[in-house]
Amino acid sequence: KNLGRLLISCVDRPGIVSCVSNFLFEKGANIVTSDQHTTDPQEGQFFMRIVFHLPDLKNKLDDLNQDFLHIARDYDMQFEMYLAEVKKKVAIFVSKEDHCLRELLWQSNTLDMDVKLVISNHNDSKELVESYNIPFYYFPVTKDTKDEIESKQLGILKENDIDLIILARYMQILTPNFISHHPDRIINIHHSFLPAFIGANPYQSAYERGVKIIGATAHYVTNDLDEGPIIEQDVERVYHSDHAKELKRIGSHIERIVLARAVSWHLDDKILTFNNKTIVFR
Amino acid sequence: KNLGRLLISCVDRPGIVSCVSNFLFEKGANIVTSDQHTTDPQEGQFFMRIVFHLPDLKNKLDDLNQDFLHIARDYDMQFEMYLAEVKKKVAIFVSKEDHCLRELLWQSNTLDMDVKLVISNHNDSKELVESYNIPFYYFPVTKDTKDEIESKQLGILKENDIDLIILARYMQILTPNFISHHPDRIINIHHSFLPAFIGANPYQSAYERGVKIIGATAHYVTNDLDEGPIIEQDVERVYHSDHAKELKRIGSHIERIVLARAVSWHLDDKILTFNNKTIVFR
Amino acid sequence: KNLGRLLISCVDRPGIVSCVSNFLFEKGANIVTSDQHTTDPQEGQFFMRIVFHLPDLKNKLDDLNQDFLHIARDYDMQFEMYLAEVKKKVAIFVSKEDHCLRELLWQSNTLDMDVKLVISNHNDSKELVESYNIPFYYFPVTKDTKDEIESKQLGILKENDIDLIILARYMQILTPNFISHHPDRIINIHHSFLPAFIGANPYQSAYERGVKIIGATAHYVTNDLDEGPIIEQDVERVYHSDHAKELKRIGSHIERIVLARAVSWHLDDKILTFNNKTIVFR
Amino acid sequence: KNLGRLLISCVDRPGIVSCVSNFLFEKGANIVTSDQHTTDPQEGQFFMRIVFHLPDLKNKLDDLNQDFLHIARDYDMQFEMYLAEVKKKVAIFVSKEDHCLRELLWQSNTLDMDVKLVISNHNDSKELVESYNIPFYYFPVTKDTKDEIESKQLGILKENDIDLIILARYMQILTPNFISHHPDRIINIHHSFLPAFIGANPYQSAYERGVKIIGATAHYVTNDLDEGPIIEQDVERVYHSDHAKELKRIGSHIERIVLARAVSWHLDDKILTFNNKTIVFR
Repeated sequence: KNLGRLLISCVDRPGIVSCVSNFLFEKGANIVTSDQHTTDPQEGQFFMRIVFHLPDLKNKLDDLNQDFLHIARDYDMQFEMYLAEVKKKVAIFVSKEDHCLRELLWQSNTLDMDVKLVISNHNDSKELVESYNIPFYYFPVTKDTKDEIESKQLGILKENDIDLIILARYMQILTPNFISHHPDRIINIHHSFLPAFIGANPYQSAYERGVKIIGATAHYVTNDLDEGPIIEQDVERVYHSDHAKELKRIGSHIERIVLARAVSWHLDDKILTFNNKTIVFR
Repeated sequence: KNLGRLLISCVDRPGIVSCVSNFLFEKGANIVTSDQHTTDPQEGQFFMRIVFHLPDLKNKLDDLNQDFLHIARDYDMQFEMYLAEVKKKVAIFVSKEDHCLRELLWQSNTLDMDVKLVISNHNDSKELVESYNIPFYYFPVTKDTKDEIESKQLGILKENDIDLIILARYMQILTPNFISHHPDRIINIHHSFLPAFIGANPYQSAYERGVKIIGATAHYVTNDLDEGPIIEQDVERVYHSDHAKELKRIGSHIERIVLARAVSWHLDDKILTFNNKTIVFR
Repeated sequence: KNLGRLLISCVDRPGIVSCVSNFLFEKGANIVTSDQHTTDPQEGQFFMRIVFHLPDLKNKLDDLNQDFLHIARDYDMQFEMYLAEVKKKVAIFVSKEDHCLRELLWQSNTLDMDVKLVISNHNDSKELVESYNIPFYYFPVTKDTKDEIESKQLGILKENDIDLIILARYMQILTPNFISHHPDRIINIHHSFLPAFIGANPYQSAYERGVKIIGATAHYVTNDLDEGPIIEQDVERVYHSDHAKELKRIGSHIERIVLARAVSWHLDDKILTFNNKTIVFR
Repeated sequence: KNLGRLLISCVDRPGIVSCVSNFLFEKGANIVTSDQHTTDPQEGQFFMRIVFHLPDLKNKLDDLNQDFLHIARDYDMQFEMYLAEVKKKVAIFVSKEDHCLRELLWQSNTLDMDVKLVISNHNDSKELVESYNIPFYYFPVTKDTKDEIESKQLGILKENDIDLIILARYMQILTPNFISHHPDRIINIHHSFLPAFIGANPYQSAYERGVKIIGATAHYVTNDLDEGPIIEQDVERVYHSDHAKELKRIGSHIERIVLARAVSWHLDDKILTFNNKTIVFR
């Protein structure tokens, strides 16, 4: 519907908002929403997200992009410009537990995405995925075959022009090589309130520690396991009578809600990253 | 510290952001934060809050205000401009229950306000208030004396140049005349999750209805009792074993937190009202 | 697994716990969990839920029930005794919006229930339901056919020996006659934080009132629309930028979580009702 | 008001509830509330809290205690019996930040406790404490004087017959010797959502990690710093725009609420500990 999104990041200094909003005004665009954040008005890092409306944007986007390069150069900006109506192409990775996968497939009519394929190291979700007419790839990863399989996966992702990879409870650790192909483009759901209970079996650990609240965390994947920029977290209260199994059940509901929220924000280009943290504009 | 706040409201149309940000840039101001909201990009109502930094702002504010009038006229804007370092002058009204009063007095070192006086229809809080070196006015209101007392109160408020009135569990209904002197400048805390349990004894009503969650609501006061624009709400879970008295105790904690939050946002000029609703910028 | 559940309600007086626990002890049962509540220790109403373990309970339950009648008579108790391993037979009613139905079907492997059939006044969910091998009944209700259709539905419910009816966003009002056949056995999900926004279009009403938190409520159905005993409620924060459509989307997630929770408690015989309120034991 | 509380812990086996409730019934007591928990019905650990009403309990408590010893021996129980009307004697330890101290003093009329004294390693809170007519002890601890000062403190605690020590943001680490004198009788508030951000400066760490939710944790103090049994936790959402200072401010409100809740449960004898975890009965 002729909506564009412009994401900007640069060192803060006077005149940025004025310059960018002038640019859009002169191009005939109306600013629909605009959010900004600065780590420090005195030469901190500045971030902005603008949603604008411009008739016939589809055919004008390339030129707009080109013309904005001048401003970007002047302010030493990084920027991205998206046509809102273009759905991002998504690949979902999953292992045995399918609650997050189900939630994403289920919400795929309201989430603004195009799920191109699902990859799994188990065959369990094949039927579910194919019932949505989505191709399912089964790659039983072992230590010896990991590199080989990852390069096959990278090939499939490239062929399908994938914009976003969602690890919906994928229990394999990706190699730095794999991650480097998709910086800030891989979202993982971790089944604890990070940084508490990093690593395996967080619900068992939470039970043993006797916490009164459990949570889940969606984050971008980096080479440091469970240490990437946090996108979203949520929590639920638990009781002394809840055993580890019960925590897992309660947690599974938090996981799918948190992951779906993080994915929806990414799809709407609402997230910027800086210093291993996220700026999430509403 | 030379920070200014500019609040704007007008019919949405292209060019507003550009025009306003240019104005500030040309005056030498740096935009620190900027938030906006539109009810509809096609001729809906547009709202913006800008915090800007301008050296020697204190001495320039009047001129800035004057110069901005031209833009305001062009776009048919309503606007307000504030110097952030000027604390708002506050009057607190209270009856017998003092938990909200206490919270405000207590937080008065972190909340950006200058509590000039406390008015009550009971004498109970006199000692507490005076221990903070704040004048305490005792006005035992009756039906017959209400009008007379309100005009005395209005006098005191005027003398003290009060910017904001906080009803911190003040159990008297203000007259339309009183309210009309302070539009969107009177914040009340209602001890229920509005619009549930409008009116008196909400905790008793909540107990009788058997709700599983109770809440409190801070809102601007209008002539329609408990119907003014909601600023903030929060809730807490309760159990079948919690009697009305217990609900009241739990609720009192929600009340003081919610009221303090709403007040802090008002003090930071983060709230705009429209159509009996609030826009609360972060 | 030889677990039994005993629910008791009577006027409070000394000796009840002692008497009941003696009874179970003498029968060879071990109390696994026990919860109680009294509205007032001085002749208020007393409620108790006991889960006990007794070898070969399946074959002993009838005798146990019979023998407990003596105690029940002495204390003028109402009581129910259930074999935990027997799944309750459930009928789900749904209209067009299927998110609550989906959630229940999806969780039907972890929820301890046997979904015998789904009834709808629309045909939309037929395929979904039948993919779970569950019979789907389509009854397009009109004013004129309501009574006739309800008696058909009652017939189907009786044939299938249904223990619990779940209104998973069923947009028809049931007649008092229908409800009287299933007292405290019909759970409805209302898409607001009751008692706020009773009636139709609660999300639109919530948007217009400008609330900062929205919610959903699961309750037993009585003849007073939206006035039955509340089982569970939950809420989510919303913002001025969220339009009615967005509230509906956010709300739909609360609805399905709240309904699933209420249903799971009913299935575990954790709920007692009294004075139009619920006692929900953990 | 003749209310007694009985706390029990023993290995689970059939007949405990029956035996204990018979005992109370025979003594003429009426059970007001009863809660129980078992880690495993098959020889797990069993916990029970009973509140009972018995006329003239004050004069009968010693005998009751004595008579219960027989049952305790038979079942190898640990048990405690309290007269509800006897307020626990409390000592509060504080350093510079006084928000938790203030909250406790403030709530001291509703919390069922008798604050006998406040101890601090700074002089800042002296005036506040003494305004409540509570003795204030100033002990400026250094490495060299720690042992000496702790033994003075232990003396004061003993003289005042202190039942509970509350560390209301006391920034000194207590020695194992000090702790061993008050097992499960020292409650600390930690300013993070444990086990995340153990140690110093948790708000700074939370800011640097970019978490989206912060929290606070009340726990019993053991020799392992920040590792004692967790009593209560709560959380609040934060945003990318919240700097460490803002997290600290938000967190301070969570801290005082969480600490006050944990203390109120302890005062009501609602907490049992086992395996470094708490059982908290409602």
